[in-house]
Amino acid sequence: MAKELTSRSENYSQWYQDLVIKADLAENSAVRGCMVIKPYGYAIWEKMQAELDRMFKETGHVNAYFPLFIPKSFFSREADHVEGFAKECAVVTHYRLKNDDQNGGIMVDPDAKLEEELIVRPTSETIIWNTYRNWIQSHRDLPLLINQWANVVRWEMRTRLFLRTTEFLWQEGHTAHATREEAIEETIKMINVYSDFAENYMALPVVKGKKSENERFAGALDTYTIEALMQDGKALQSGTSHFLGQNFAKAFDVKFTNKEGREEYVWATSWGVSTRLMGALIMAHSDDNGLVLPPKLAPIQVVIVPVYKNVDQLNNIRDKVNIIVNALRSKGITVKFDDNDNKKPGWKFAEYELKGVPVRLAVGPRDLENNTVEVARRDTLEKNTVGFDGIPDYIENLLNDIQQGIYNKALNFRAEHTTRADTWEEFTELLKNKGGFISAHWDGTVETEEKIKNETKATIRCIPLDNDPEEGKCIYTGNPSKQRVLFAMAY
Amino acid sequence: MAKELTSRSENYSQWYQDLVIKADLAENSAVRGCMVIKPYGYAIWEKMQAELDRMFKETGHVNAYFPLFIPKSFFSREADHVEGFAKECAVVTHYRLKNDDQNGGIMVDPDAKLEEELIVRPTSETIIWNTYRNWIQSHRDLPLLINQWANVVRWEMRTRLFLRTTEFLWQEGHTAHATREEAIEETIKMINVYSDFAENYMALPVVKGKKSENERFAGALDTYTIEALMQDGKALQSGTSHFLGQNFAKAFDVKFTNKEGREEYVWATSWGVSTRLMGALIMAHSDDNGLVLPPKLAPIQVVIVPVYKNVDQLNNIRDKVNIIVNALRSKGITVKFDDNDNKKPGWKFAEYELKGVPVRLAVGPRDLENNTVEVARRDTLEKNTVGFDGIPDYIENLLNDIQQGIYNKALNFRAEHTTRADTWEEFTELLKNKGGFISAHWDGTVETEEKIKNETKATIRCIPLDNDPEEGKCIYTGNPSKQRVLFAMAY
Repeated sequence: MAKELTSRSENYSQWYQDLVIKADLAENSAVRGCMVIKPYGYAIWEKMQAELDRMFKETGHVNAYFPLFIPKSFFSREADHVEGFAKECAVVTHYRLKNDDQNGGIMVDPDAKLEEELIVRPTSETIIWNTYRNWIQSHRDLPLLINQWANVVRWEMRTRLFLRTTEFLWQEGHTAHATREEAIEETIKMINVYSDFAENYMALPVVKGKKSENERFAGALDTYTIEALMQDGKALQSGTSHFLGQNFAKAFDVKFTNKEGREEYVWATSWGVSTRLMGALIMAHSDDNGLVLPPKLAPIQVVIVPVYKNVDQLNNIRDKVNIIVNALRSKGITVKFDDNDNKKPGWKFAEYELKGVPVRLAVGPRDLENNTVEVARRDTLEKNTVGFDGIPDYIENLLNDIQQGIYNKALNFRAEHTTRADTWEEFTELLKNKGGFISAHWDGTVETEEKIKNETKATIRCIPLDNDPEEGKCIYTGNPSKQRVLFAMAY
Repeated sequence: MAKELTSRSENYSQWYQDLVIKADLAENSAVRGCMVIKPYGYAIWEKMQAELDRMFKETGHVNAYFPLFIPKSFFSREADHVEGFAKECAVVTHYRLKNDDQNGGIMVDPDAKLEEELIVRPTSETIIWNTYRNWIQSHRDLPLLINQWANVVRWEMRTRLFLRTTEFLWQEGHTAHATREEAIEETIKMINVYSDFAENYMALPVVKGKKSENERFAGALDTYTIEALMQDGKALQSGTSHFLGQNFAKAFDVKFTNKEGREEYVWATSWGVSTRLMGALIMAHSDDNGLVLPPKLAPIQVVIVPVYKNVDQLNNIRDKVNIIVNALRSKGITVKFDDNDNKKPGWKFAEYELKGVPVRLAVGPRDLENNTVEVARRDTLEKNTVGFDGIPDYIENLLNDIQQGIYNKALNFRAEHTTRADTWEEFTELLKNKGGFISAHWDGTVETEEKIKNETKATIRCIPLDNDPEEGKCIYTGNPSKQRVLFAMAY
């Protein structure tokens, strides 16, 4: 194979890094912590964006765009928010450069200092709620259901491609409502949209739940999350939806006149997913040969590789292949016919495995004779010889099977790696030797959660929404508990 | 009318500002020079993006994403580029804030100063060519045809919504080629894509041409432009495509091995359009009643307003309207049925005129009796009563007529406002009393162009690509000239 990956068993973290680079998804840039998203990686992100954007619009949302910069003073307005967010940020202090006459090159012009520093947005609640003040007067102006696709910057000390980068791409929904109930309903609606997207497009099973107080978004009254499990047994928070109460409305003085003519503060939600989803997609499904992409998000769903010895053979193959290409395209399937003469078929097979193309067809002289095509599926690496005439329907079904198969595999993995622990010994033993989600009783206090985190690095990923109440004792303190929560080591 | 606009004849600039605000397209934000693009404005921009993105992909381009930040030193590498670009920029100097114990609030942490300042990208040639160095080794890696949709920042002193803002949204294509000829071909291909988009989607006639040396992009050997004419007789540069030669390849040491095995520097182009196109769209077509949108870019193409006295009437109208709505949607036409009971029909008529919805249908009790619908077209404000059964086909044709009509109107306006000047007196007289494009001889020197600009504020918009050679004398110096060029006052 052209580009050997480190195997998952050898070094999972190195495998991930190798895969992202070698499959041409992304790379580190000259700017510390900022990535370049390469065309193949960006094509996957575009497919994610298109589906999410459609889902947002179908649930009544519209897009808008708010400034990249936020005045420093805005962050101090909401007390919890400033604690959680305003610290590790890129700060713009000057607006001009000039020639450096002494040292050559250019330098910051000391005369062009801003009166108030600008923060490159780490998230946009503050600037958006400052804007909403002028947009909302009456209950008739509500709800306001707005989303923005944007780049954000958080000055991370340790970065990893897609999973944690200084700049990343995301969408952030910011909605405004007349009542608490309506805002909570929106918060839950959007976590359901995220879980629908994760499961049906990314083929990624997720647990929907609430965050504990400790893990809540800075400024939120409640944070809902979808949590996915990676192949190394670590959890990855894949999307969050926040019920913000009236906190930002109070901080930015956003009031409305209700139906009874009284003034009230507006209720808020915010919700987001980011290019981090790319990391989840890659880590959840891929193997030691490369990417495994669910067909619904694969930029190329089917690749066709001709196997030939001379131009005549290639021409005959091309005639046959054109029929398949047209039939598949008319079904809305994305097909690439790779007749590049500079690479051998074996090299191409390995390359498209690395790139995670769900289905590979190979057509050679013997296939022409027998009126057949060799079909290989990426997820299981199985090969079949299929009659030429049945190919379009066969492929259409196969793509659905692969989508479902990838999901089922991840679902089985999660089932095998979700374990109950009833004692501290069981808990620490599981963390050490098995990983995955650990379902355990917790006494509900911030202190206990922090002690567990300090001793084990495991965190409460969520309190699952479908939890059954169950009397029990906290694995750490032995104090009474009314339900189990999900712990895990996490990205 | 609910929201009165300043008329164009009274104050064109105020009319534009009023229109952008009152039609809910955009507004100024709390951050100097940065705008908020409101949902209705953003919906138009999304339609532009979708068409452009399709056109880029059909011409072989792929999308990618490069960092927001550029190390300061990168700008010094290409001498002309630093002169043109690196001066009025947002500069990030620190990466952390901390609590301000003395004054309250938060302050920039002096310990978190960056070793090298980062510039918020004003354009991305430098960071992209620094990246391309690792992507290009052989002629087999070429061409590289990459586009990016992104936000950029240029610290403008005087800003106007959409036309000139500190932050704006755009796309920037950056391509790499093995030969000069191929790069020039790409440069021209993309100015043709832009002019196709402007004329066929924005209904905006444009002149394609080359910029004079003075007006070239910083670092380019040639800049191609599309220039449009606004209703006040000023030109608006609407898109540019640059042939960059080997300048950036040399500055960032990007070489490839050609087919003969020799190392060469790579040839480059870049090209971009921005949210400035929104300004062009608004100013070119709209009138004193509000926006006039070409159907191909209108977020709502048809609005239907019921006129009724009681709920029974409304229900009867709704039954009829549903048939129209379904028939139009099945033709791919975007329809809104506005049965909001809080607003009177007259208010709605004015509102949708302000918003530029191309076609308005009104259905009242008499229409039910007569089996008719009232159809009003936004561009001419004409009204017609049309038989119910023929409505879907009638509307489909009408939308095409409106698209063409808006284009023709702008084309006629431009023809009427493109004038030849053969003497300095004619030239200054035209600038003062008529405006528009002035086709005049120029001696081809930077000095003359600058003198004309200093005396009149008019600039050479372009040397049209379809220019006929013509012997003549420069209107300013009287020196010999071989062709006319287009002068205008410009945005």
